[in-house]
Amino acid sequence: MIENTIVTAAMLAIGDELLSGRTKDKNIGHLADVLTLAAIDLKEVRIVSDDEAAIVAAVNALRGQYDYVFTSGGIGPTHDDITADAVSRAFGVECVHDPEAMVLLAAMYERRGMEFTEARRRMARMPNGSRHIPNAVSTAPGFIIGNVHVMAGVPQVFQAMLNAILPELKTGTAVLSRSVLSPFGEGDIGGPLTLVQKAHPETSIGSYPKFDGRNFSTDIVIRARDETVLAAAEAAVVAMMADITAAKAGQFPAAD
Amino acid sequence: MIENTIVTAAMLAIGDELLSGRTKDKNIGHLADVLTLAAIDLKEVRIVSDDEAAIVAAVNALRGQYDYVFTSGGIGPTHDDITADAVSRAFGVECVHDPEAMVLLAAMYERRGMEFTEARRRMARMPNGSRHIPNAVSTAPGFIIGNVHVMAGVPQVFQAMLNAILPELKTGTAVLSRSVLSPFGEGDIGGPLTLVQKAHPETSIGSYPKFDGRNFSTDIVIRARDETVLAAAEAAVVAMMADITAAKAGQFPAAD
Repeated sequence: MIENTIVTAAMLAIGDELLSGRTKDKNIGHLADVLTLAAIDLKEVRIVSDDEAAIVAAVNALRGQYDYVFTSGGIGPTHDDITADAVSRAFGVECVHDPEAMVLLAAMYERRGMEFTEARRRMARMPNGSRHIPNAVSTAPGFIIGNVHVMAGVPQVFQAMLNAILPELKTGTAVLSRSVLSPFGEGDIGGPLTLVQKAHPETSIGSYPKFDGRNFSTDIVIRARDETVLAAAEAAVVAMMADITAAKAGQFPAAD
Repeated sequence: MIENTIVTAAMLAIGDELLSGRTKDKNIGHLADVLTLAAIDLKEVRIVSDDEAAIVAAVNALRGQYDYVFTSGGIGPTHDDITADAVSRAFGVECVHDPEAMVLLAAMYERRGMEFTEARRRMARMPNGSRHIPNAVSTAPGFIIGNVHVMAGVPQVFQAMLNAILPELKTGTAVLSRSVLSPFGEGDIGGPLTLVQKAHPETSIGSYPKFDGRNFSTDIVIRARDETVLAAAEAAVVAMMADITAAKAGQFPAAD
């Protein structure tokens, strides 16, 4: 009996520009890559607009369901940056100008000879009781409250914040994966692959069609949290592919 | 009093590979672009894994809340393609081999001299009572049940299916938009821009920071469903930018 630790996460990407098509999100794919390497299972992503009620509803739905929630966007200095207010409301706490963030930002703008405007002070606002997420790119911190990690939408800043929090996240048993490339489409391999999946229930076998404009081919990806389990399923997929190749060539495999 | 028609939509992207980072989704951004041009407001996007309960919950949450739901992924021939089953369950109807789809697919495979395998027959399955979405790329149809439009995950096929259904979707009053580029970061423009937004409540003014590795600049996007309303807000933003530029240059604008 293998004991696996599963750690789950959800992402909430916030911003009208993602839903209008004006900005093509880059943070979801990056977070997915990083969490997979960290053995944290990203289970769900939502994208909502800069609408307080929509953000509150999504934060509350996700934070109750998963170990971690990561958000992107809406923590800048302008009127449409309302993530700090919405997350505060989701947790039922006051949104305050965090004293430590005020000191950080005031010092940074003084160094740069820039005015610490009312708009810039907005970037120090966070739910009362939050911890900071350091921002190595542009100083203004993200924040953590409960299991919710609030980060910027600008990809360079999102990535820097994610790097900062990664060492302190609890991680699960890594999901190992192995790929087998099939020159055949899913219609040729789907039947036999179902049998392989059924014979290897501790693995998750995914089948990803590719289309080059004329023909379909397929990437078969086998995932498991144990190397022995993974290797057995991979061998079964490889054997299945050899059988299909032989059958296609008119050379039927010998009976067992 | 301006009467606007608002038509809303949500997208549900389905697939483990989107959440593991293996595949970087291309359909969300494409759908966002197309719906914006069609004057349909994309309000929410969710990404879930190939998990029947997760798909059922998302379909039922979204179809009750928005005029249209568009899904991508999970309608191929392999064991991990379970969207047809999940959508059937969400609507409480049987998932059947659609007779018309069976005829289409059988004819296509016969023309191509290919076996109509059990796996390929899976692609004819859809909730009882669905209408087809034609597939100009690879024949196997998507389907429509209620307000839910189920399409393929392969981008070329998703796009072909979306093109096929677009003419029959009801559309709203178009959202017009105008961009003003600001060489200044959001901290410089955030205060004045809040006043402009308050003075033009029928518009939605978005502010999108860009970071070139050293400095922030900002795209200001003004949106409205009426040209006169839009033009007035745009003029106010342009005047605001002139004031900020003059102030930055030490030349304060003359008092009114």
